[in-house]
Amino acid sequence: MKIGLVDTTFARIDMASFAKKEIQDNWPSVKIVEATVPGVKDLPVECKGLLEGGCDIVMAFGMPGKGPIDKQCAHEASTGIIQAQLMTNKHIIEVFVHEDEGRNDRDLYDIAKNRAIKHARNAVELILKPENLKKRAATGARQGRDDVGRIG
Amino acid sequence: MKIGLVDTTFARIDMASFAKKEIQDNWPSVKIVEATVPGVKDLPVECKGLLEGGCDIVMAFGMPGKGPIDKQCAHEASTGIIQAQLMTNKHIIEVFVHEDEGRNDRDLYDIAKNRAIKHARNAVELILKPENLKKRAATGARQGRDDVGRIG
Amino acid sequence: MKIGLVDTTFARIDMASFAKKEIQDNWPSVKIVEATVPGVKDLPVECKGLLEGGCDIVMAFGMPGKGPIDKQCAHEASTGIIQAQLMTNKHIIEVFVHEDEGRNDRDLYDIAKNRAIKHARNAVELILKPENLKKRAATGARQGRDDVGRIG
Amino acid sequence: MKIGLVDTTFARIDMASFAKKEIQDNWPSVKIVEATVPGVKDLPVECKGLLEGGCDIVMAFGMPGKGPIDKQCAHEASTGIIQAQLMTNKHIIEVFVHEDEGRNDRDLYDIAKNRAIKHARNAVELILKPENLKKRAATGARQGRDDVGRIG
Amino acid sequence: MKIGLVDTTFARIDMASFAKKEIQDNWPSVKIVEATVPGVKDLPVECKGLLEGGCDIVMAFGMPGKGPIDKQCAHEASTGIIQAQLMTNKHIIEVFVHEDEGRNDRDLYDIAKNRAIKHARNAVELILKPENLKKRAATGARQGRDDVGRIG
Repeated sequence: MKIGLVDTTFARIDMASFAKKEIQDNWPSVKIVEATVPGVKDLPVECKGLLEGGCDIVMAFGMPGKGPIDKQCAHEASTGIIQAQLMTNKHIIEVFVHEDEGRNDRDLYDIAKNRAIKHARNAVELILKPENLKKRAATGARQGRDDVGRIG
Repeated sequence: MKIGLVDTTFARIDMASFAKKEIQDNWPSVKIVEATVPGVKDLPVECKGLLEGGCDIVMAFGMPGKGPIDKQCAHEASTGIIQAQLMTNKHIIEVFVHEDEGRNDRDLYDIAKNRAIKHARNAVELILKPENLKKRAATGARQGRDDVGRIG
Repeated sequence: MKIGLVDTTFARIDMASFAKKEIQDNWPSVKIVEATVPGVKDLPVECKGLLEGGCDIVMAFGMPGKGPIDKQCAHEASTGIIQAQLMTNKHIIEVFVHEDEGRNDRDLYDIAKNRAIKHARNAVELILKPENLKKRAATGARQGRDDVGRIG
Repeated sequence: MKIGLVDTTFARIDMASFAKKEIQDNWPSVKIVEATVPGVKDLPVECKGLLEGGCDIVMAFGMPGKGPIDKQCAHEASTGIIQAQLMTNKHIIEVFVHEDEGRNDRDLYDIAKNRAIKHARNAVELILKPENLKKRAATGARQGRDDVGRIG
Repeated sequence: MKIGLVDTTFARIDMASFAKKEIQDNWPSVKIVEATVPGVKDLPVECKGLLEGGCDIVMAFGMPGKGPIDKQCAHEASTGIIQAQLMTNKHIIEVFVHEDEGRNDRDLYDIAKNRAIKHARNAVELILKPENLKKRAATGARQGRDDVGRIG
């Protein structure tokens, strides 16, 4: 299995490194390819290139700012990331942390780390152990904070 | 007939199980394929894969949260789900329940169950009995709550 | 000429019937194909199927609800309907009536009837008499209410 | 050179005529093809058809209403117009005038006329004299009102 | 390496010139192709043409106005720019400066100049020195103002 990790120079927390460590520690045989683009709107085509170049799945890390224009950029990026998946028939796991998600820098850092690590697990299991995701189906899983559990 | 049921680990109510039971009880010859992805934005490409892999139709279950970002994610997912249909020339029945639709957990559970079951019927009939949908044309059918009926 | 009429079980007014009668009364040689889907987001792929199956044009009837989520669904459906046209190089005439357009049920019914009939004429003329649309160019034509006329 | 002019029956000001006269007066050798559709959401596929039928460029005239739903329709139309360009590798010059742009009917008429004429020039020059656009690069050019000029 | 610079007649600051000078001063062997279109919504197809005509990457310069309609145009343009990248498998670096970003004309000018120059560097390095972007990964890089640095 080969996984791509694409991040941005714009982000303020090194989420790709958390994901990389999680993958290397738990699935040492998985090959990792890395790339960096300026901002989230540059992610779709970069991810598509990695998927067409042989990656089985790609993680796209981004950290949109607080302003309305940042929200719009994130929306455009997400739309492009979904399109890229439909064109390649492969998954891209979007790992975005919005700068206004955290109460302060420390909180934001913790959210980003938690989200990157849990999604790294999701990404690897989607390829190698899809049955593990099936077991967690509809369990209120959250990335970035604690799971919220099932209703009923 | 083969139907795909794709849900998320994010959701808090097991809607796919309601649909599965409804299909097995009423159309035992229909084959069912299941898959789980992390969140709603991962649904489009997964559904497309199942449709290209031989499913006649797919149901996509999701449960977007209450925040503005969750609404945006749901919008992006829906757009991708429509694109996936246009690329495969097959239907994907989107079964989304928004966390803020219910007055409380019990109400939310009832909405989710009702919507999943009614849409399972819609999905099977679109393939096996499209004339049944024609009979219900413009009758104010609702999934998740009671039908509202026709005007005029 | 062959025209497709696609409506939803969700709608509360039988707009397809108004269109059908208008076409049969005035252009009896036009062939009509009918289909029904659950909601507006199921319209794009169904319309595309009819266009690829030989229809020259399709009318897509929908009746979005009043809530913000309904507006969003309508937007997603419309986007998909435009995409379906670009993929088939044929027109789909979208005939949507929003539940909050009418002052009351009677008013809503009148709007829906007027819109369905006028758009049936538009659809047939786009294929058989495009010069008739040219004559009405920039005349403030409205479907659902009275024309508003030209300025200047 | 062949240019397409596509307008709507919905619009209240005959913008295509302004553009047509501007082209005939200044570039008499340019061939003009005309078409009319019901509303702005019908423009994308019609423009695409003209571009694939031999037009070098198309102007798409529309006049969205004042309500939120009209704004949404305009947005959907614009998105489709951009897609149509990407699918044909040719330009479509969108000439939309929003009904709430003018202080009154007279003002709206003047805006529409000015915009149609200036964009007719843009359209012809994009094909025949792209160097003229280069000369006006970043000069604060406006269509519909006076140019605002360069900063710095 | 060949880079395309596409700007608009609508913009009020000559951002392409800043980028051109930066490239010529620092990477004199890079070939530059220039083009100008009326507004931001004309950028996607023009950029796509340059990428298919041999450019390795394109910079798209735009300066959306302050009104809600301008924001919507920018959004539509951005969506098209992302689509154009996915269709060509090449990057387009979007360099948009919103007219309401600056406190006054001078401030706006400084933002535009800074953004154009820094993104010129990003564009060249994406092609010639992707390892340089990798070094700046997740460092809070900003174009238009000072970098904000890393958290944690």
